[in-house]
Amino acid sequence: MNPNVKRVEYAVRGPIVQRAVQIEKELKEGVKKPFTEVIKANIGDAHAMGQKPITFLRQVLALCSYPELLEDNKFPEDAKKRAQRILDSCGGHSIGAYSASQGIECIRQDVARYIERRDSGIPSSPDNIYLSTGASDAIVTMLKLLVCGEGRSRTGVMISIPQYPLYSAALADLGAVQISYYLDEDKCWSLDVAELRRALNAARQHCNPRVLCIINPGNPTGQVQSRQCIEDVIRFAKEEHLFLMADEVYQDNVYAEGCKFHSFKKVLFEMGPEYSSTVEMASFHSTSKCYMGECGFRGGYMEVINMDPEVKAQLTKLVSVRLCPPVPGQALLDLVVNPPQPDEPSYTTFIKERTAVLAALAEKARLTEEIFNTVPGITCNPVQGAMYTFPRITLPQKAIDKAKEEGQVPDMYYCMRLLEEEGICLVPGSGFGQREGTFHFRMTILPPIEKLKVVLQKIREFHLRFTQEFS
Amino acid sequence: MNPNVKRVEYAVRGPIVQRAVQIEKELKEGVKKPFTEVIKANIGDAHAMGQKPITFLRQVLALCSYPELLEDNKFPEDAKKRAQRILDSCGGHSIGAYSASQGIECIRQDVARYIERRDSGIPSSPDNIYLSTGASDAIVTMLKLLVCGEGRSRTGVMISIPQYPLYSAALADLGAVQISYYLDEDKCWSLDVAELRRALNAARQHCNPRVLCIINPGNPTGQVQSRQCIEDVIRFAKEEHLFLMADEVYQDNVYAEGCKFHSFKKVLFEMGPEYSSTVEMASFHSTSKCYMGECGFRGGYMEVINMDPEVKAQLTKLVSVRLCPPVPGQALLDLVVNPPQPDEPSYTTFIKERTAVLAALAEKARLTEEIFNTVPGITCNPVQGAMYTFPRITLPQKAIDKAKEEGQVPDMYYCMRLLEEEGICLVPGSGFGQREGTFHFRMTILPPIEKLKVVLQKIREFHLRFTQEFS
Ligand SMILES: Cc1ncc(COP(=O)(O)O)c(C=O)c1O
Ligand SMILES: Cc1ncc(COP(=O)(O)O)c(C=O)c1O
Repeated sequence: MNPNVKRVEYAVRGPIVQRAVQIEKELKEGVKKPFTEVIKANIGDAHAMGQKPITFLRQVLALCSYPELLEDNKFPEDAKKRAQRILDSCGGHSIGAYSASQGIECIRQDVARYIERRDSGIPSSPDNIYLSTGASDAIVTMLKLLVCGEGRSRTGVMISIPQYPLYSAALADLGAVQISYYLDEDKCWSLDVAELRRALNAARQHCNPRVLCIINPGNPTGQVQSRQCIEDVIRFAKEEHLFLMADEVYQDNVYAEGCKFHSFKKVLFEMGPEYSSTVEMASFHSTSKCYMGECGFRGGYMEVINMDPEVKAQLTKLVSVRLCPPVPGQALLDLVVNPPQPDEPSYTTFIKERTAVLAALAEKARLTEEIFNTVPGITCNPVQGAMYTFPRITLPQKAIDKAKEEGQVPDMYYCMRLLEEEGICLVPGSGFGQREGTFHFRMTILPPIEKLKVVLQKIREFHLRFTQEFS
Repeated sequence: MNPNVKRVEYAVRGPIVQRAVQIEKELKEGVKKPFTEVIKANIGDAHAMGQKPITFLRQVLALCSYPELLEDNKFPEDAKKRAQRILDSCGGHSIGAYSASQGIECIRQDVARYIERRDSGIPSSPDNIYLSTGASDAIVTMLKLLVCGEGRSRTGVMISIPQYPLYSAALADLGAVQISYYLDEDKCWSLDVAELRRALNAARQHCNPRVLCIINPGNPTGQVQSRQCIEDVIRFAKEEHLFLMADEVYQDNVYAEGCKFHSFKKVLFEMGPEYSSTVEMASFHSTSKCYMGECGFRGGYMEVINMDPEVKAQLTKLVSVRLCPPVPGQALLDLVVNPPQPDEPSYTTFIKERTAVLAALAEKARLTEEIFNTVPGITCNPVQGAMYTFPRITLPQKAIDKAKEEGQVPDMYYCMRLLEEEGICLVPGSGFGQREGTFHFRMTILPPIEKLKVVLQKIREFHLRFTQEFS
């Protein structure tokens, strides 16, 4: 067996989630528990938490799936037009045909135009767009492309701690060197270039650092980076000849007053040609997050910038081996980057639905921070964006000892107890990485507001009880 | 850059296909050519070649995409029932939710029941089923799991020559050792255990052979293996402690009189417990082929048999990193393994459509063999199954010399000329591997019958002209 596979860890779907699934089965079989349902706040899966799909997206997908419906006057004209355009760009006018490996050309054009609008007109070329099977696929592919060397010249990849564990898992799988840089919890999980430099210099002793990964807005930490910070990071990447991987899947998920999403690409280009024509970069987006939450379709794209044409040719070849990303996911992405316009019949409903989703998320972000910060022993940064909170928990020494006795890391012990006693499934902070001696958990803010209140209340009660038990 | 990525080659989407896409653009722009359209017979993409989707499948997918249609009395009851069942097994009743990484449980149950029916009752467990993003994904994942070691202890993987280039590409990417065994063209591309043994013994000098891959029915060669041959292969795998990977994506595509699909699993179990409880195996299936031809949905599954529970746990962890296969593809797979039953309203149409597709393929298989074998310098084995023919072409020495002058392998030169002169896109045999000094091309039998006749006729004329030119 591949030893790198053994080293892979992926906490978001780890032992605690497996136990949650088991408990759900036990509940179904009538086993008595102190709760009647398991609430899974472990994963950023909006629909699973009750968020309704956006009508327009699903109408077009139904039309693409079963084009006979194009004759049906129940569907709005703009939905039909979009569906027809997608079908016309598919082999044999069917979403059942393989597409080009890089993705359907007219969808890549739409993506490029979307990026241009987002970035105030900075040009984007469809040739630099690669559609993907969710952002996960694109991230793993890009890492695979960049990693090489052996021993001390093995590629080092800088990732934040805490991080989204796809990164550490992919690096383990590739046998690349993970270089951890720490986000500053005391400054709302911000990123500091001095810390990047510290991590880089330390890593130079034992590997060849070549790649810097950033998640903005942040998972699991929910921060939104300032424009200044992004500039600093880009300057650092240029100085140190690092390839920038900007994970921007939460680009629409910004809630906090005064926060704004700045794409790495836009900032890069605004810094002038010295930067915009030299820094190599890839940016990732997905249909899974934002207001759509369409995780199951596995849609996404990456844009590559300043990539050496030879490397790009290799990338194109590499993605061809798996033939193509799922076409329904590509179609969905097309609608996301090319939504109804003000003069189209679906516009009003679309905007209403999108606004409602984002407003509810903003409200839940606020509520989560507020309630957690009333609990002694829990401290929680503002959820500026994304879909998660990563509060710090103070655990009594006796609880830490008890966990060790049970052979578990302390926050895993805490989360397991919470699951068994309250039916709430969170992911321990250790699954994302945290400073030695600190403990956290990650919770999504996705449950419907009334359920979220219950969840927060239950965690509160559990935390007090747990703290008491071990005092 | 990753040097393994550089070594990857994937002919099915290689330079000839890129040139075909270019020519299509030129045609659109009004550039004059000796033909008016490019016919792409390079890839097994049924819908792109005009095959119509199966109505039932698409109705259910439309219902799953836009559940408001469940209220619509235009849809048959069985389609609604299937859609409702799939939705009920999705988080939040939405195909937009992530599924379990191994795939939706009720669909894995349906797959297991399908396998049991196919294999005359030999038991199958949903725990051994992993849904995937097309068969490509499952094959790559399984290879990744199995490959390890360095230098002379590096894992060797046996693949047929000619092969489907996903295999050689994945092995290059993983840095595994490819062990080539040759199919016997003179015996209708059959597989001979003596040749397996020769290849294995030779490979033992420089690597650690651990895996044996078989494609049945064969791509690119179109053969269907006899039950006897499969037994021999299984016996060989047991003796040599090889993990068997059975690529059975064409299991419904069997046309020739006297040929029948035998699943490796069924034969394994019929050989008795000595085999059925020891030989480790994985079998792959896909929604892309058979009568469905739904390539764009990227649906598929693998069944693992006798896999060490620890390795299986690693596999489960590994697939969790990319979260889940596309849910629309999973839904589609569910319909394939659980199609309309005789007492259901969609049955008649479903059977009619399925039969028509398979009958047309059988007719095209026959026709292809027949016409090619009338051309002096082309010899073609019967297309017993799958969707391809891999005829051998005799090239004049002067043509071979000319190709070398142009820096091309001779069959690439041949296929490029065919593309430029007739607008027909085939894949040169060198992309799949062939015995030194022999030349082939692969052509799909998918074009509609009238178009296929034209294609065959054009290839005939081209071949005669080409041969003449270089005589
Ligand atoms: C930061 C980040 N990147 C990438 C992904 C992958 O998402 P997907 O593969 O569904 O697009 C996620 C999913 O949660 C994420 O949080
Ligand atoms: C033998 C064989 N295996 C696997 C595949 C992969 O198919 P998919 O990934 O579309 O399921 C193909 C596609 O042509 C094939 O011919």
